[in-house]
Amino acid sequence: MNRDQLRGLFEEVRSGRASVEQAVERVRGFFVDDLGFARVDRHRHLRCGFPEVIYAPGKTPEQVVRIAESLLEGGGDRLLVTRADEAVCARVRERFPEAEVHPLARMVTVRRRDAPSSPGGGRVLVVSAGTADLPVAEEAAITASMMDCEVERLPDVGVAGLHRLLQARETLFQARALVVVAGMEGALPSVVAGLVDRPVIAVPTSVGYGASFGGLAPLLGMLNACAPNVAVVNIDNGFGGGYIAGLIAREGAPAR
Amino acid sequence: MNRDQLRGLFEEVRSGRASVEQAVERVRGFFVDDLGFARVDRHRHLRCGFPEVIYAPGKTPEQVVRIAESLLEGGGDRLLVTRADEAVCARVRERFPEAEVHPLARMVTVRRRDAPSSPGGGRVLVVSAGTADLPVAEEAAITASMMDCEVERLPDVGVAGLHRLLQARETLFQARALVVVAGMEGALPSVVAGLVDRPVIAVPTSVGYGASFGGLAPLLGMLNACAPNVAVVNIDNGFGGGYIAGLIAREGAPAR
Amino acid sequence: MNRDQLRGLFEEVRSGRASVEQAVERVRGFFVDDLGFARVDRHRHLRCGFPEVIYAPGKTPEQVVRIAESLLEGGGDRLLVTRADEAVCARVRERFPEAEVHPLARMVTVRRRDAPSSPGGGRVLVVSAGTADLPVAEEAAITASMMDCEVERLPDVGVAGLHRLLQARETLFQARALVVVAGMEGALPSVVAGLVDRPVIAVPTSVGYGASFGGLAPLLGMLNACAPNVAVVNIDNGFGGGYIAGLIAREGAPAR
Amino acid sequence: MNRDQLRGLFEEVRSGRASVEQAVERVRGFFVDDLGFARVDRHRHLRCGFPEVIYAPGKTPEQVVRIAESLLEGGGDRLLVTRADEAVCARVRERFPEAEVHPLARMVTVRRRDAPSSPGGGRVLVVSAGTADLPVAEEAAITASMMDCEVERLPDVGVAGLHRLLQARETLFQARALVVVAGMEGALPSVVAGLVDRPVIAVPTSVGYGASFGGLAPLLGMLNACAPNVAVVNIDNGFGGGYIAGLIAREGAPAR
Amino acid sequence: MNRDQLRGLFEEVRSGRASVEQAVERVRGFFVDDLGFARVDRHRHLRCGFPEVIYAPGKTPEQVVRIAESLLEGGGDRLLVTRADEAVCARVRERFPEAEVHPLARMVTVRRRDAPSSPGGGRVLVVSAGTADLPVAEEAAITASMMDCEVERLPDVGVAGLHRLLQARETLFQARALVVVAGMEGALPSVVAGLVDRPVIAVPTSVGYGASFGGLAPLLGMLNACAPNVAVVNIDNGFGGGYIAGLIAREGAPAR
Amino acid sequence: MNRDQLRGLFEEVRSGRASVEQAVERVRGFFVDDLGFARVDRHRHLRCGFPEVIYAPGKTPEQVVRIAESLLEGGGDRLLVTRADEAVCARVRERFPEAEVHPLARMVTVRRRDAPSSPGGGRVLVVSAGTADLPVAEEAAITASMMDCEVERLPDVGVAGLHRLLQARETLFQARALVVVAGMEGALPSVVAGLVDRPVIAVPTSVGYGASFGGLAPLLGMLNACAPNVAVVNIDNGFGGGYIAGLIAREGAPAR
Amino acid sequence: MNRDQLRGLFEEVRSGRASVEQAVERVRGFFVDDLGFARVDRHRHLRCGFPEVIYAPGKTPEQVVRIAESLLEGGGDRLLVTRADEAVCARVRERFPEAEVHPLARMVTVRRRDAPSSPGGGRVLVVSAGTADLPVAEEAAITASMMDCEVERLPDVGVAGLHRLLQARETLFQARALVVVAGMEGALPSVVAGLVDRPVIAVPTSVGYGASFGGLAPLLGMLNACAPNVAVVNIDNGFGGGYIAGLIAREGAPAR
Amino acid sequence: MNRDQLRGLFEEVRSGRASVEQAVERVRGFFVDDLGFARVDRHRHLRCGFPEVIYAPGKTPEQVVRIAESLLEGGGDRLLVTRADEAVCARVRERFPEAEVHPLARMVTVRRRDAPSSPGGGRVLVVSAGTADLPVAEEAAITASMMDCEVERLPDVGVAGLHRLLQARETLFQARALVVVAGMEGALPSVVAGLVDRPVIAVPTSVGYGASFGGLAPLLGMLNACAPNVAVVNIDNGFGGGYIAGLIAREGAPAR
Repeated sequence: MNRDQLRGLFEEVRSGRASVEQAVERVRGFFVDDLGFARVDRHRHLRCGFPEVIYAPGKTPEQVVRIAESLLEGGGDRLLVTRADEAVCARVRERFPEAEVHPLARMVTVRRRDAPSSPGGGRVLVVSAGTADLPVAEEAAITASMMDCEVERLPDVGVAGLHRLLQARETLFQARALVVVAGMEGALPSVVAGLVDRPVIAVPTSVGYGASFGGLAPLLGMLNACAPNVAVVNIDNGFGGGYIAGLIAREGAPAR
Repeated sequence: MNRDQLRGLFEEVRSGRASVEQAVERVRGFFVDDLGFARVDRHRHLRCGFPEVIYAPGKTPEQVVRIAESLLEGGGDRLLVTRADEAVCARVRERFPEAEVHPLARMVTVRRRDAPSSPGGGRVLVVSAGTADLPVAEEAAITASMMDCEVERLPDVGVAGLHRLLQARETLFQARALVVVAGMEGALPSVVAGLVDRPVIAVPTSVGYGASFGGLAPLLGMLNACAPNVAVVNIDNGFGGGYIAGLIAREGAPAR
Repeated sequence: MNRDQLRGLFEEVRSGRASVEQAVERVRGFFVDDLGFARVDRHRHLRCGFPEVIYAPGKTPEQVVRIAESLLEGGGDRLLVTRADEAVCARVRERFPEAEVHPLARMVTVRRRDAPSSPGGGRVLVVSAGTADLPVAEEAAITASMMDCEVERLPDVGVAGLHRLLQARETLFQARALVVVAGMEGALPSVVAGLVDRPVIAVPTSVGYGASFGGLAPLLGMLNACAPNVAVVNIDNGFGGGYIAGLIAREGAPAR
Repeated sequence: MNRDQLRGLFEEVRSGRASVEQAVERVRGFFVDDLGFARVDRHRHLRCGFPEVIYAPGKTPEQVVRIAESLLEGGGDRLLVTRADEAVCARVRERFPEAEVHPLARMVTVRRRDAPSSPGGGRVLVVSAGTADLPVAEEAAITASMMDCEVERLPDVGVAGLHRLLQARETLFQARALVVVAGMEGALPSVVAGLVDRPVIAVPTSVGYGASFGGLAPLLGMLNACAPNVAVVNIDNGFGGGYIAGLIAREGAPAR
Repeated sequence: MNRDQLRGLFEEVRSGRASVEQAVERVRGFFVDDLGFARVDRHRHLRCGFPEVIYAPGKTPEQVVRIAESLLEGGGDRLLVTRADEAVCARVRERFPEAEVHPLARMVTVRRRDAPSSPGGGRVLVVSAGTADLPVAEEAAITASMMDCEVERLPDVGVAGLHRLLQARETLFQARALVVVAGMEGALPSVVAGLVDRPVIAVPTSVGYGASFGGLAPLLGMLNACAPNVAVVNIDNGFGGGYIAGLIAREGAPAR
Repeated sequence: MNRDQLRGLFEEVRSGRASVEQAVERVRGFFVDDLGFARVDRHRHLRCGFPEVIYAPGKTPEQVVRIAESLLEGGGDRLLVTRADEAVCARVRERFPEAEVHPLARMVTVRRRDAPSSPGGGRVLVVSAGTADLPVAEEAAITASMMDCEVERLPDVGVAGLHRLLQARETLFQARALVVVAGMEGALPSVVAGLVDRPVIAVPTSVGYGASFGGLAPLLGMLNACAPNVAVVNIDNGFGGGYIAGLIAREGAPAR
Repeated sequence: MNRDQLRGLFEEVRSGRASVEQAVERVRGFFVDDLGFARVDRHRHLRCGFPEVIYAPGKTPEQVVRIAESLLEGGGDRLLVTRADEAVCARVRERFPEAEVHPLARMVTVRRRDAPSSPGGGRVLVVSAGTADLPVAEEAAITASMMDCEVERLPDVGVAGLHRLLQARETLFQARALVVVAGMEGALPSVVAGLVDRPVIAVPTSVGYGASFGGLAPLLGMLNACAPNVAVVNIDNGFGGGYIAGLIAREGAPAR
Repeated sequence: MNRDQLRGLFEEVRSGRASVEQAVERVRGFFVDDLGFARVDRHRHLRCGFPEVIYAPGKTPEQVVRIAESLLEGGGDRLLVTRADEAVCARVRERFPEAEVHPLARMVTVRRRDAPSSPGGGRVLVVSAGTADLPVAEEAAITASMMDCEVERLPDVGVAGLHRLLQARETLFQARALVVVAGMEGALPSVVAGLVDRPVIAVPTSVGYGASFGGLAPLLGMLNACAPNVAVVNIDNGFGGGYIAGLIAREGAPAR
């Protein structure tokens, strides 16, 4: 949408031919920055409530930085890069010194100085079953916190030692949305969901071996959860789990 | 929890040995009605925010009615029976004349006269791809409306005729949570989720043939959705989709 | 092994050419009754500690009865027929009036008057998740009781309502072996196994729909159980679960 | 077919013992160059309308060059090597200095000076969903252009940002055949096919993770496309997609 | 799009505010007839080159007829109902006496008197492997002929008796597009495609047993075809195969 | 190939233009009887050593009889119809009174009076694991005996009662080829193959339930047999197992 | 549970407010050592009869040592680390000089001086099929011996050479529980189980290639074992097999 | 079986207490050389007609050599090591200078000077589809030639260029048994089997990508072959294919 088109749109609004609502809608649809190798969706924030997130695999560090520049220069106040290896993290940090690297979660994030800093988006609880599930859980936690949610973590509470979970019952009750991360048999979401009255986003992980079949076992388990308040995202998709939990928690936040 | 135990509990609360919070917690854990063939979880409403729902397959009409009685007599103000065939519906209606039968959704519901009737739970939109997906979509819609959500339906907007969906954009923007039901290739949730800033609960259906493999194709498609605001429930699980969307919409409702 | 062969064997033993151990071994190997349509393994009791069990599907009622006769006339003191439909049950009962029919478990059993009646084989606990899992659980329970084990049942304690299971903790601790039967996500064995110090035999059931894929989901879940004291049998194989639990419980019985 | 056999064939044609049609048929069947390690199908161009293409994996650079020589010396005017690594590309270029290397597409091509250069084969549009799908898309594009089709590319128009695709509607309408390349949920072909009246060749890619199962998810999605004008090739088979689209576009070209 | 909207559009065109091209585009997007249970896409013919086709399963005969009415009254000159059982066929014929029933293909078709009758769309050849594949092959053949293509059939030429196929080589060469239908191992498309220089649309069927896994075997086989001119549609999807072959053949037709 | 063509062929042979070998080859390729719904391969016996076999499913009794007539009138001396239901058997017998019906094997066979009757084709042993595997085993046995092999059966020797198999060791050693039929875990072929020095054709059956997945379990087991002399055919394919064992046994027969 | 809590508990017991049983129960539930990255279940021994076992993959050597310290300092008298690479083994040994490394089994174990050393737990027999199955078998053997069972090994007795197994029949009869480890077709557990009257724990391995699909073939085979005394653990899960066999053997040990 | 036992056996034969047949049987069962890490089956040749073959993966070069020594010193006149890497080949050759290394087939073989050298075992033809299938085909060829069969190779005759196969028809007719090796869609065995009257052993390969799923596609295709004379071995199992073809060809050899 070039300057002239934008001017024309405002003319229409001023003259009453287009309502404000209609103008917003039209703007929503067209902001794309064409980098040649990618069409950056700069106004995804406007349309979907959060800036486009950069999934790093298959992109060079340089490409990641150029997309990042397009997003932040297009008015974005924050940036999220997922599955980032060391080279990507280093290059992003070089370009944006305020960037923060999260090695466990394999992420790098940028939050502009003018971005709102106080968490106001409701509380998200990230529960995980075993130590090996931590990278995926951390990806979920950082994603939700980048959405301005208050995030709490409850790690290593697998179902074979139920008392560890039961001791934390109060913590469970305080969240508006829960992300439950588990590999192996993936039973944790069912158990957690039976204890709370909030939505549980289940994230199966590829932690396991043999008949886990790369995470198929917990994925199927979670899809068949006997508790009705469980919905599932892709194997190892901590980002998706944190994102949708963040959206839910924001819904329920008092001052949004 | 018998009368004496309950009296004891209240004594503890009165004397300060137990706080009110603690008392609620203890009550939450123990209300089970043992019918011999089933242990009815009468206080699931208290614990999880909605009464236990009766999944009819594998139960006789008589068993369904007896569980229903236990739930409604245990203080429940509403009842939901899913996948109910004609015999079950008839028997429930005979016992509870106020019951409502929903043939397309294969459900029967009861809402006690004293149950709150005005929808206050936020708006849920149930989008579906084809005519054959309607039973699953309707199951989702009725479930969400039993949770006091305002429910709107947008049927037959499959991705091969995109204009049908785009025309309804305004409708999409007004929901707090969306349920998107699709069989075949299951592409609709990705497309819808890219247009909105709310959580999308995707329900794959077994509608299709051949390489659909009983709904595996749309299930995998939805789990791999490139839009991050999509979470998935089991194939044909309209109830689950409506339930979790209802929970989300209630979060965001102004007066809860 | 005909009478003459048997006499010859005893001659060898008496003369010292064969030791008693060797004689037992030879007898163990050869007792087969050839009915034309089946080779009945009459001395399976001697070799494997329990008489051959008749799996009814694919056999006519008449064939079942003839195999039953061969087994009981071959010295067996009890009989177990699994997956028996009404016709099979009726025919067996007609032939053996002392037979007992178990409709829920789809079994018919015979216990000869001279069979030991007091349960001395250690306690087996059969835990099950939902009402629809009861037929499989009952098959396990009856099998173990036919092995002279003391059998207790703990039905309808699915993981989405954990308090039902936790209330029965004492019961869990009293069993020498546990059979845990569950469909849907199949999480119950992991949870139970984390609470006890005895072997847990997990039986996945085909109860469920969609991404259960006929019981694949709970099967994979149980195989990936994070508790180490879980071993798994085939989907819906209540007989196998009860049988192996019975063997284990007999091991631990004080007076065997 | 040696010179004498060929002469004999022409004699038959001249004398009328064989019709021209018959002669063409006989020639079609027999031109094979036996290299020992491969039987090069030199007259595939005559039979199938395009020279045999060299799939490089499992062949040494030397073997590739020898097959290439056989094809080009056998009268071919162009050459296509797919999935070529650097060593193969270098060796081919050394032998045929006019060779062109396409690193993104992992291809090397040769076009003899006497090969027709003007694209006359109808327009093929190669649409792709994400940046990571580009190598497969490029393989399709180069293949179609080697078939003398006019090729246009429309990259990075995944369904989660539908406006990017809708803006390019005019481009979609101008193609005689479309190749649509997508990983993840593979929804793009359905959406594109619903907008056009031309054949869409869908190419699923292995881009994705977890429940993508190496491209199974988009493959199944595309096979279940609700638009009828979609046909599918193997996962990551950009060459196949471009080839069949090229055949189709040539059909519709005005001057062939 | 009602009469007034249409008039307004034409006003815009006349006055030059909208170009003819723009007007066509706007009309293309909006013609939907909302029947309550379905949104009939009446102008699919304009957008996609062929009227919407009615897939009968899951629809009542009455619903099929009402959609058919909407399509034919909306200006359509022909109608295609697939997977139609006897009741649907009878009801359609009752309403449209000119309807033609095709029992083998399980279809019913209507061709309005004013529809062009001479086949001008290029020749489509439908090849099939065995007698049991005939229903799917016939569905393809009738679909292509409804698209005004000249259709030829070559049945029962499975690869285990290759001479049957080789004898028909001339027939193979005359088609602009081929549909090849096969169950079992699904090898026929590879063999056919190696003989011709036209696009081959492969249709796997569920004919077979055991390790065919409902058509998975031929589906995978066809996707891995070593001939590059093969693209694949869903199992048993004769309609899709015929449709896309029809589109291709029309491209190549001299006078379209 | 009509009379004139045949005469022409013989003329060529007499004049030396065609060698005898060439003439045989040409005859081999062309004998097909086109019934409209099927192209009967009448000279399959000449080409492949056994007449074409009629697989009944999907054919009407009348169609089966017409193909049978074509085969027997085309010079065949025997006929095999597999998977024949009662109606097919009855109709074949009505038309060919000498037909023999095999209910257990679901086959009907015809052997012309002039067919050689003495088994001279070497001995085939058909081993099977359980009673439920008998129909498949019998299909194999009858197929091999129709190929003039001497056939012996060894039923009900499953691996859980190994002594039944070991007692029959002598029988195992006398066969030139063995067919081993088993469902459940499919372990029998490995065990048998380790005892003999002849080829073992393994036939997995769909006997079993749950994790048998319709015969997938024994199929995979047999393909992974640790004995090298095992080759496998499709699930429940008794005909294929008997056929290939018959071919092998004929090879080794002294006077063929 | 700190010292004060423990003192309070004992006070309750002494005063009679809590029974001894209740006290044991409360202690059982709460002993967790929170290391930040892990919640060590120090009293698993008390609850489940064996200390928590450390599964090394995904943990640094340092993390393994810290968990080990927590367990051993928490009163444990032995330690088991599975799937330990060289770095983990070295680091554990450095910290606990009495540690024993088992390279074939990829384990490192510690047994405190005060741990009971005489095997009193009944005999476990570990049977394995081939040389490549030895690492998994050894993992089972060491696990059972760490549970104070007497362990015997019977390697390389695959079913293709049955005599090797039959020669060892006496050994089979002496075990209270058997672990049977096999890859390829996984037939060994069925064969062994048919010979004994004790529970058989089957461990499928990923040994094999092609249609083994990473151990799926033996896994399915073992789940479908026709002998009823077989239960199965995950692919390559030697630890689980040894653990559950150890539990069973302990049950049957005379002096426990 | 030590010298004394053997002497005793011969005494029994001489005295008539044991027949020659019985003596052979007893010898057959007991010859095992226990190396500690392996129980070498030295008399497999006697029992199964060919010496035990060494599958190298998972064995050290030293272990391979020790097993080889045991086999050759135990009276074997030839040796076959499969899937041998360079280290294994070098070590075997160092120990047995007469060893022959086959790099393409990844085998090393030894043939003692006293082994019969003239091929007398009937002709085996090894057909393969593409260049990448050659290693598997070569493994089959060398295996069959080690069984004294005359072996011919027909490489690179994939079904997409049928004329290459048809030109070699004479070669096909001359074999007693055929091994057909193919990856991709695996159609070649069906086509070959339809042309010959001998058994065809089909070997699927993992050559391919995407929807080949590691060879699943050709495996399923071959199992569903519409020609009845096809039996299948494991993916990439050239050894098994050659072995069973060798057994078959030996059966049919005139002087055996």
